[in-house]
Parts: sequence; structure tokens; C-alpha cells
Amino acid sequence: MPSSEMLYVFQPSAQPAELDEWLALLAARGGGSSLIRLGPTPVIATTDTVEITAPARLPRPVATVRVTGGVRLTRREVRPEGTVVSIGPARIGDGRLAVFAGPCAVESREQMDAVVSTVAAGNGVVGLRGGAFKPRTSPYAFHGLKWSGLDLLQEAREKTGLPILTEVVDTRHVERVAEIADAFQIGARNMQNFELLREVGETGRPVVLKRGFGCTVDETLSAAEYILAAGNDQVILCERGIRTFEHATRFTLDISAVALLKQRSHLPVMVDPSHSTGLPNLVAPVSLAAVAAGADALLIDVHAQPEQALCDGAQALRPSGFHELMGRLEMLVLGLGRDVSVVMDVDVRDATVAGIA
Amino acid sequence: MPSSEMLYVFQPSAQPAELDEWLALLAARGGGSSLIRLGPTPVIATTDTVEITAPARLPRPVATVRVTGGVRLTRREVRPEGTVVSIGPARIGDGRLAVFAGPCAVESREQMDAVVSTVAAGNGVVGLRGGAFKPRTSPYAFHGLKWSGLDLLQEAREKTGLPILTEVVDTRHVERVAEIADAFQIGARNMQNFELLREVGETGRPVVLKRGFGCTVDETLSAAEYILAAGNDQVILCERGIRTFEHATRFTLDISAVALLKQRSHLPVMVDPSHSTGLPNLVAPVSLAAVAAGADALLIDVHAQPEQALCDGAQALRPSGFHELMGRLEMLVLGLGRDVSVVMDVDVRDATVAGIA
Amino acid sequence: MPSSEMLYVFQPSAQPAELDEWLALLAARGGGSSLIRLGPTPVIATTDTVEITAPARLPRPVATVRVTGGVRLTRREVRPEGTVVSIGPARIGDGRLAVFAGPCAVESREQMDAVVSTVAAGNGVVGLRGGAFKPRTSPYAFHGLKWSGLDLLQEAREKTGLPILTEVVDTRHVERVAEIADAFQIGARNMQNFELLREVGETGRPVVLKRGFGCTVDETLSAAEYILAAGNDQVILCERGIRTFEHATRFTLDISAVALLKQRSHLPVMVDPSHSTGLPNLVAPVSLAAVAAGADALLIDVHAQPEQALCDGAQALRPSGFHELMGRLEMLVLGLGRDVSVVMDVDVRDATVAGIA
Amino acid sequence: MPSSEMLYVFQPSAQPAELDEWLALLAARGGGSSLIRLGPTPVIATTDTVEITAPARLPRPVATVRVTGGVRLTRREVRPEGTVVSIGPARIGDGRLAVFAGPCAVESREQMDAVVSTVAAGNGVVGLRGGAFKPRTSPYAFHGLKWSGLDLLQEAREKTGLPILTEVVDTRHVERVAEIADAFQIGARNMQNFELLREVGETGRPVVLKRGFGCTVDETLSAAEYILAAGNDQVILCERGIRTFEHATRFTLDISAVALLKQRSHLPVMVDPSHSTGLPNLVAPVSLAAVAAGADALLIDVHAQPEQALCDGAQALRPSGFHELMGRLEMLVLGLGRDVSVVMDVDVRDATVAGIA
Repeated sequence: MPSSEMLYVFQPSAQPAELDEWLALLAARGGGSSLIRLGPTPVIATTDTVEITAPARLPRPVATVRVTGGVRLTRREVRPEGTVVSIGPARIGDGRLAVFAGPCAVESREQMDAVVSTVAAGNGVVGLRGGAFKPRTSPYAFHGLKWSGLDLLQEAREKTGLPILTEVVDTRHVERVAEIADAFQIGARNMQNFELLREVGETGRPVVLKRGFGCTVDETLSAAEYILAAGNDQVILCERGIRTFEHATRFTLDISAVALLKQRSHLPVMVDPSHSTGLPNLVAPVSLAAVAAGADALLIDVHAQPEQALCDGAQALRPSGFHELMGRLEMLVLGLGRDVSVVMDVDVRDATVAGIA
Repeated sequence: MPSSEMLYVFQPSAQPAELDEWLALLAARGGGSSLIRLGPTPVIATTDTVEITAPARLPRPVATVRVTGGVRLTRREVRPEGTVVSIGPARIGDGRLAVFAGPCAVESREQMDAVVSTVAAGNGVVGLRGGAFKPRTSPYAFHGLKWSGLDLLQEAREKTGLPILTEVVDTRHVERVAEIADAFQIGARNMQNFELLREVGETGRPVVLKRGFGCTVDETLSAAEYILAAGNDQVILCERGIRTFEHATRFTLDISAVALLKQRSHLPVMVDPSHSTGLPNLVAPVSLAAVAAGADALLIDVHAQPEQALCDGAQALRPSGFHELMGRLEMLVLGLGRDVSVVMDVDVRDATVAGIA
Repeated sequence: MPSSEMLYVFQPSAQPAELDEWLALLAARGGGSSLIRLGPTPVIATTDTVEITAPARLPRPVATVRVTGGVRLTRREVRPEGTVVSIGPARIGDGRLAVFAGPCAVESREQMDAVVSTVAAGNGVVGLRGGAFKPRTSPYAFHGLKWSGLDLLQEAREKTGLPILTEVVDTRHVERVAEIADAFQIGARNMQNFELLREVGETGRPVVLKRGFGCTVDETLSAAEYILAAGNDQVILCERGIRTFEHATRFTLDISAVALLKQRSHLPVMVDPSHSTGLPNLVAPVSLAAVAAGADALLIDVHAQPEQALCDGAQALRPSGFHELMGRLEMLVLGLGRDVSVVMDVDVRDATVAGIA
Repeated sequence: MPSSEMLYVFQPSAQPAELDEWLALLAARGGGSSLIRLGPTPVIATTDTVEITAPARLPRPVATVRVTGGVRLTRREVRPEGTVVSIGPARIGDGRLAVFAGPCAVESREQMDAVVSTVAAGNGVVGLRGGAFKPRTSPYAFHGLKWSGLDLLQEAREKTGLPILTEVVDTRHVERVAEIADAFQIGARNMQNFELLREVGETGRPVVLKRGFGCTVDETLSAAEYILAAGNDQVILCERGIRTFEHATRFTLDISAVALLKQRSHLPVMVDPSHSTGLPNLVAPVSLAAVAAGADALLIDVHAQPEQALCDGAQALRPSGFHELMGRLEMLVLGLGRDVSVVMDVDVRDATVAGIA
């Protein structure tokens, strides 16, 4: 790994020819340089760490950042104003609170219909979560409906107008999942499956990257770096608890990490109170805490009949509990000077949704 | 340990003679029984776990609770309305947010004077923290001013009217510290120093019990149980972070534990964002999160010149940062439908305080 | 996951027609049943947990085991005598100590030649380790020579006659790596990459499964279960340290887990003292401890010039240190009533090896 | 804490007048200096870190060590040959393996008599463990027989001739326990009870210092430093497992720490396989591992009827299991080129011991 680099960050309006000139200027000094597109943002990385100035006719960088180690493009300094990630019509990272909700696993059309009315547009939810491919500790557990689960998610999107977020677990699935889902979820167990990170990076589609339960904040940022280095800046970091000696909760939600990730990186931060606590009674207080600590988004398990869920049902909120939580969040964000994000302009293709909602 | 017990909880108004009759009724059934005074509340614990009813002329218990294991008197069911702890004029656990602030260690009169104006009454602070006896990892580190530090704390109380909270580290000191301090702090390293717990329990004075950084939620409640079993219900549980593999912060604040302690116990919960994070930049977001999760109180390191502190200065807020945080907390509690607690009726013995504040 | 199952374990000599009869008998009782080949061992798993007896002409099971949860085929009771894994001419799990050594990462032909003389056959080493695909925390680090690294490993095998063990990181690589390597290594970061486990399971080739640094003993056995459930019993479990608050070593080697895995499972257990400690000074004492606790095999980083290694060099033993350790291990296993395994009948295809060793 | 110091370590034969001259020489240079007696070894610590040479007539230091941080007198460099601790007739740290055994808690004369025959002199045991004051998580658990437990230990010493090791939990008890016990045990929960450390340091009696389950290797050495700084070098460090996410065992024995403590410090290292694993099946393999890693001593729970023990019975070995382990240890130490320590010259005051053993 080169011991250090200088990053020149430009306005999206910088022209290819101008950037080529910058590259030539740097090449003339002898260091290796390359152009990365961080979403719309051109970034030139060079091993020459002396900051140079270019002729006045060339665009000036909006930021120059000296970087080292595994965390470079994800650093807050590269984009101090923060990155806004778009998942379908939803915007995450614009200051408002974005809530994604749905069942842990997609189980059946009946189950999805039951949950859809709870999380439909207009209820303060901006996206639908649901697992079709479920990594499970045991080979004998329910592993999701796989491709037919994705079909059910697609139906749910049509009924609600909400974008869908679903997990991808194999490099061989990435292309096909990308055709259906609005955003990828990389699960905690795959946070350091670097081949998978590269592959989703290359699609350019939004990615929710869950922190590995045995991984540090720095490693989480380095994992995100794999995706950004592939030119994809549509990454949301998701804190979902780490493994500690405390077993009163399923994992220990690292609330300080939420604030730390916001300070160190320009990427939006999501929190999953359901998987981290594993206890429905704790979902509300932990959600409120996450938002107070600065989280941009929440990812909440909701199930119409948690006791019958095929996967992690014990932790899901019932619709009534979920609505109560949404009310409390609305009040909280006022106290914080923020808003709850809503999806206004949804393209509801299925007229029946009105009846559902 | 008796495998299970039944607790009969009575109104404070129950008369000794009536309670004696209850004890006699239970004794007649053969189980061992004893009367505990949980603050003003009489509780009869009996190994006979069949719930009995007494003649109508005797007071009926307000609650009967079947208990087992190490957590009995601290359980929420024993006092569902929650315990309010009084430290001087301050009330903790009454729904409002109580902030204790001050330096990690008392260093000198000059230092205390400088910090006193920041945390004086009227600024939203209800109590003054400051360590005179400092347990330190190394025998070569600064261990506090000891008894002369307590004298300086006493002076600060006179100047501000704020009650003082300070750590006690040795059973042999308990009596003398009780004469000066308004409340004891039991540090994380002494949470399972059970002789010390018994000793502060017997004084009946308020105790802030810090969770050991290697201890579970259940062990924290069991430690509190030592104090309650001695008849002292004036206990505040303090979450201050646990040891995990994540070293980006000094400890990992267990935000779920805050909510869990509130649900499982009737005791108020305090959070120490300064020692848990070890980073001043994280004190504000973590404080907000703690309050959103339901904390009754905060314990915040403030130092006029953190870079010159003799102990843990790196994590202290400057006065400006502290005031900014107090403003944000005031807005937050509105969103949560709560208030910031203030000390109105302070008995300011030193006229100079007006000038200071 | 079916709440419980009965396993009928048969001698390898049981005939297909006989097993079909057994399946028919069980089917007649109504439970779902299926035949799994655990290497040469036929196992019938059935959801009918009442143990039945078959007509005398049918082979009787050598063991019947009632199982539940995620750990079934890996349980010690299924094969009380233990599984012996064959990697090329090496046998792991036969009571003798098997040592695998080599560089963390394959870097160049020169590097491999330098290390080959150290770990050549006759020195007590039974296999050669070397990473061609290296999962690294940072996208900017050295990720291995990839396919050309595998070519160099193949050359080293020809020179030494030692089988090669190398990591696989992507389901898409499994087939091609299987053509070259004698055994797969699944790295700690991929222990719960279940698609990869299934894929290596289906090849039937030996697998060294490293415990995830955030994963429990039970989860490690469940991960192995994915491979066994695919019919592949050639699995070695590798303890390589877990994440804890203690950072004096890179990870905390869980020595109790070594003994626990041996007691709970029939699979051989390997220990990696190099990656767990990260300190060359600790490799020898931790290797001795691992063997005393019952480990069947060791996996040791050796590098001719650790200070020039491209990956994890800091922890590698120099040849001199490695030879000294081999001498101490030889004495130790005598005290334990065991032997060091050696490769006698190696098929050395390259005559130059005599000169090298 | 002074940022760094120079230690001059002298032969025990150095005369007070000579050491005074050394102090005067250093004082003349302006730094603060002081004389510490590390057992028989005079050590001068000075803040002047330029190494000076004294006139030829004065004794030359056997070692000069530049130190910083909390770990100074415990450093290996101060006494490269290692410290031998004497507990009654037993020597710990002389290269041989020393085994201390006995019940977790002293319960009754009958219980002690039953265990005494197992651990009597001649069986390879050099000391008797037994808790009279038991720190327990719950106030409702059995806390030991207290002073009458010490009386029973004293009786057991008379019957066996073995020295007794017992826990002390309160500064107020230190003097009286010192009159009875041959060595103090500081339990894991009190490792950072610094007042207690200072107090046992001042007695000069041997101390077994158990590592706190939430404390690092460095903190353990710093805790020992409190005792050495009081002039008491008779300290044995005891690894007894740390808290991690792995709950298959009660704690996670940190085997690397055993080797690390031996390398970093001159103090002998003991391992407690019983409390760390909590599982009798693991006591033997973990004991073997500890010795292979370099432990000087073992501390093993033995109980004649574990199922009736009042405290931690589940983990105790039965006499038969203990004898089998002693046999295996004897073979192991041969392989390691060591011996098992035995107590030859015991002063058996009670003639009945022959019958017991």
C-alpha cells in the first residue's frame, strides 16, 4: 500500500480535457496518478504529496487532502458537505431522517401484503427492507425464498411505490439482483468479503454496508473504501452492533461509532436497532438514541405476526409498535432541528395501494 | 442463595406493629422471613413463595413479587413508579434530566474556581463532580489531593450551592467522606468491591454506582442489590462504557444497557459520556443519545484548561463546549417531552457566587 | 430448521440396496429421511426421532445419534474415533502432530525458493502454506499474486514433494483452485460466507476452515456443518484467535476452544499461532501450548526475510527460529505420548530438491 | 507520573552507606532519587535518565534500566534471572512446576478433611488453596465461612504440612489474615482495588495477584507494580481468563498472556484453569497448555463431591481426575525439560497426616 497519497477533489463540472491536463502536470513531477470518479465527483489520487498549483485556466480543486492508510476516499475531508445517497425516490444523508422498514425475511405473498400496509408510503417510511437470500448460521435453517423472494419484493414495490433494499450474498448473483433491487445490502458476515464489495462497487448501485460484528470502525471504513475505489459513492454505512461479553442483548450497539463515522466520513450512517438488540422492547429507545447521535437512517424489522416469522421474528416490531415509534421519532427530530424524510412523489404503479394504505 | 423468594412491598405508612403481624403470619407457614426498609418502603422477603392474604385490618401490600437470583430489591416490579434519588437539593429520577458536571480530579483552588463559574447553579447543572481520591492504573500517576481535595469540594459547594459527588475507594474512608460529600461515587474498578458496597449501603447516603467495564448488566444490578439489601435505596446506576475490541473510543458505551436498566430496575440511570468515549468530540452526540435512550442523568467532565489537567484531561469539555451542549440538551428534552432539571432553592452561603455565575 | 433429527451412521461397507431398505423403513413411519455420504460413511438423517430396529439381514448402524440445532454431522458422537483428513500424502488427525509452514503470501519465485529449503520434506513439515489470493482490510494493500501465485505454489510442491494449502476467496474461483491446490483454506473473514462453504463442500477436497475472529465455537462447528452437509468430511477446524479487548497480541488465541472442539467434534483441529499472536516471540510458546491442549496440526508463518515480507511479515518466524521450534515440539510430543508426523513417501518430481534441502 | 526514570539495580550485598553515596551522587545532578528495596534487592530510581558511573570503590549496579509508564519494577530487565517466590516451604519460579490445589471455598471440617488426603504432601502438590472470604456477584450467595474458614485452613495446614493460600477482600482484614495465611490471594474483582494492593504490599507477605477479567496484560503488570513499589517482590501473577464474546467457556483463558507476562516481567506466572474454563472436562487440557506455554504454577479446584459444593462446584475436579492430571503433568514437564516441584521437608505437626495421605 503506498504509504501516502494526495487527493485533488474537483467540481463535477470539471471537463475531461482539463482533468487530463492535471494528470499530465502531476505525471511530469514523477509520481503515479490516476483519476477516480466518486459518483459525479472527479478525484485525482497521486503519490506525489507536495501540493501543486495549476495554471489559472484549469479548474482549481475544491479540496486537497493528504491521505494515508486504508481510509482515503471515504474521508469526510474529501466531501465535507456529506454524500447524499439516492435509493429510488428516497434521499439518505440530506439531514432528514430516513426510515427503512419491513420483514427480516420475505416469506410469502400473504406475509408481504400484511406488512405492506404498515410500511406504505405516507407512513414516514422511505424504503422497504426484506431478505430473499438469508445467510444463516446453520445449514438447516430457513435461507430465504431466493429469486422468488425477489419477485415478491418487486410486487411489494409496485404496491407501495417504495424502493426495495435486499441482501446479496454471492458475487455470481450481483448482476441479477441489481436488475431487481433498488439497493444492495451487504450483511455483517460479508463486510470483509472483498470480492463481493468490488462487484457491487462496479454496478454503481446504492449499497447499505453493514458493519461486521467483529470489525472495527476503521475496518468498516476500509470496507466502504473498496466500493468507493470502484467509483461508486452511493454507500450507506450501517451500524448493527458488535460482539462483546454482554449477552443481555444480542449484540452491543456501538452508539459512539455512529457519531464517529459521521465525523470521519462523508457517507450517510444507518442504524439497525432490531438486529443489534434482538429485543423488541429495546427497538424504540435505541432508535431514538441512534437519531440523537446523528444517524441519517434507521433499518427496522416489522412483521405482522412476529411469533410466526421464519427468521429472527423475536426482534420484530408489530405494526402498532412501529407506528408508535414513528410518532416518537417525529417529535424527537423536531427537538434536534431535523425532519423525518417522506416519499412524496412515489410512482405507484398499482392502484390498489390506496386501499392498502 | 435461596432459590426463590416472595417480596411483599408495603406503603411507607404501614405501622411496625402491622408489619410484625405480617411477619408472624408468614412465620406460621414455616418459611424464613425478614423485614427490609427500602428507604421509606417496608418490604418483607420470605422464602415461602405461595402468596398469602392477610386479615382485612392489616395493610395490603402494594406489590407482591416472586424473585430469584441475585436481582431482587432492585427490580422494577418492586417499585414500578421508579425511585427518585435526592442529592442535596437535586432530584434524580423524577422525569427531568439532571446534569452533574465538573473536573475529573480536583487539582487546586484555582482550577476549581475556574470551573465553578461554568457549572454554577442556574446553568442547568444540578451537581458538581470532582475526584479527590483517584484510582489510577499506575502507582506513579496522580492519585488526587485526597482529604484536601475534599476540602476544596466543600468550598466549591459553598460558592455554588451545588451538592458534591465524589469517589470513595476504601472501606476505611467511608465514614469520613460521608461527613463531607452529598453523594458517594463507586468507580468502575470497585463495582464488585463488595465490602465497600456494603459499607456505603449502611450509611444510607446517595450512591452513584458505576458499571464495571468488564461487568454485565445483571452484575451491575446485583452490585446495586448489595446497597439496597443494606436498606439504602438511594442508588443511581451509571453506564460508563464497557471493554470491547473496538479501541477507536476508550470504552464502548452500551446504549442498550441504558434502556435495559430502566426497564428492569426502578433505580435512576446516569450516563458518563466523557469516560466512555475518551474523546471530547463525542461527548455531545453521546450525551444526546443517552438522554434519548432514557437516561435520567449525565455526568460530564468539564475543565477550564483540559490540556493542563492532571487526569484524563483529553476527554474534558471546555466551558464553551459544555454550554453549547446544555443548549442542545434543552431542545432535545422538549422533543422527548421532558425537562432539564434545575436547582432553584440553592442555599448559597458565599455571597461571591453571584459574581462568579 | 427441523427441531430435531435422528442420525443412523453405517459402516462404509453398507450396500446401496441395504441403505435403500433402511430409507424405506423410515419412510413407512412417516418422517422425512435422506442419505448423506460423510466421506465413505453413509449417514441417514430422519426427522423421526424414535430409534427403530431393522430386520437382522440389514446392516446395523454403528451409531445412532439424536441431534438438534445447527451442529449435527460434525458431532463427535457421529464418528467417535475421529476423522483423519488427507492432504496429499499428509494425514491430519491420526494422533501425530502435523505441521504446515510457509509464507503468509506468495511473493516471488525467489522468496518461495528461499523458504522451500526450510520447510522441505524431512524437516518435520507435512505441508506448505502460502497465500495467492489475500483478503486485506484495505483495497490499497497487496492482495497477492493471484493465479500466478498458484503457479509458484505448484512449483514449490514439485520441488519439495509437499502438498499445498492455499486460500480461496470467491465462489467463482473454487473450481480452478481445486485443480491446483491440495487443500483449500477458508479464511477467518469468510468463515460465514456460506455460499463459499457450500461450493468447497461440493468439491470433496480437503478444507482448512479458519474460525472467524468474531465467531463462537458453536458457529465454527455450524460453518463446518455446511461443508459436511454437502458430503465432504475432509474438514480441519483452525483456531486462529478471536477479537477481545486485549490488544497486546493481535488476537486472543482461544486455547480452551482447541480442547472444546476436539471434545465436541470428530474433526481434526489446527492452530495458527502466527496470525493469532502477531508476535514472533510468542509463536513458540503458543505452538507448544496448542499441542499440549490437543491440537492435531499447526499452521506457521515462515519467511526467509520477515522484514521484507509484503504481508504480515512482522509475525513470521525466521528459518532458524522455525527449526528451533520443531526441535522443541519433537520433545514435547514425546512427553504427551505422541509423535510428529512426517512425510516419508513424497513424490519428489524435481531432482533438485535434494540440493535444496 | 514522571515521564521516565532510570533504575539502578544493585546486588543485595550493597551496603546502606554505599547506597547513600550513590543517592548523593545522583542528587548532585539535580534529579529526584529514591531507594526501593525489591525484596533483598536495592534499587535506586531517579528521574535523571543519563546513566552515570560512580567511583570504583562503590558497588556497580548489576543492571541499569530506562523505564517509562506504569510498568517499572516488574520489568524483566530489572531481574533478568527471574524472581522466586517462597510460600511456606514451596518455591515458585525456580523452573519447576508448582501446583496449588484445594476447594474453591472452605465449607466445613468434613469437606476439608476429605480434600486434604487428595492434595496432601507427596502428591505433587505444594500448596493448599481455599477461600474463607468469597466475593460473590450476589449478596444472597454463600460468602464463605470468614474467620472460622481461616481456622479450618490452619488446621488443614497442620494436617498436611502444606502452606495455605487464601483471598483477602478488605483493607481492614489484611493484618489479621497475614497472621494466619502463608500467602494472600487478590481476586480478579479486586485487581484494581489499589488500596488493598498497597496494604498487602506493605506486609511483605507473598501475594497471588489474579488478573481482572476486564483488564489488560499491561494493567496487570501495573497492578503488581503497586505491590513492588511498596517493597514487596513476592508477587505471583495469575492468569484466570478474560471476558470475551465466547460463552462456551466461563471466561477465555489468554494463553498468549502467559508467555507475554513471562517475557515482560521477572515475576512467576500462575494459571487457574478451573475458574477460566468453568468446565471440569477442560481443566486437564488447559493445564497442560498452560505449562507448555511456560506457566510456573497452577491453581486447581479440587472437591471430593463437586455436586455438593457451595461455590463454583461445577468446575472442580474430583480426586480421581486430579490424580490423573498430576500424572499427565509429570510426563509433560519431562518433555519440556522441567520438573514438578514437590515439598520434601514439610514440617508436619499433626501425626495423623500419614493416615490421611
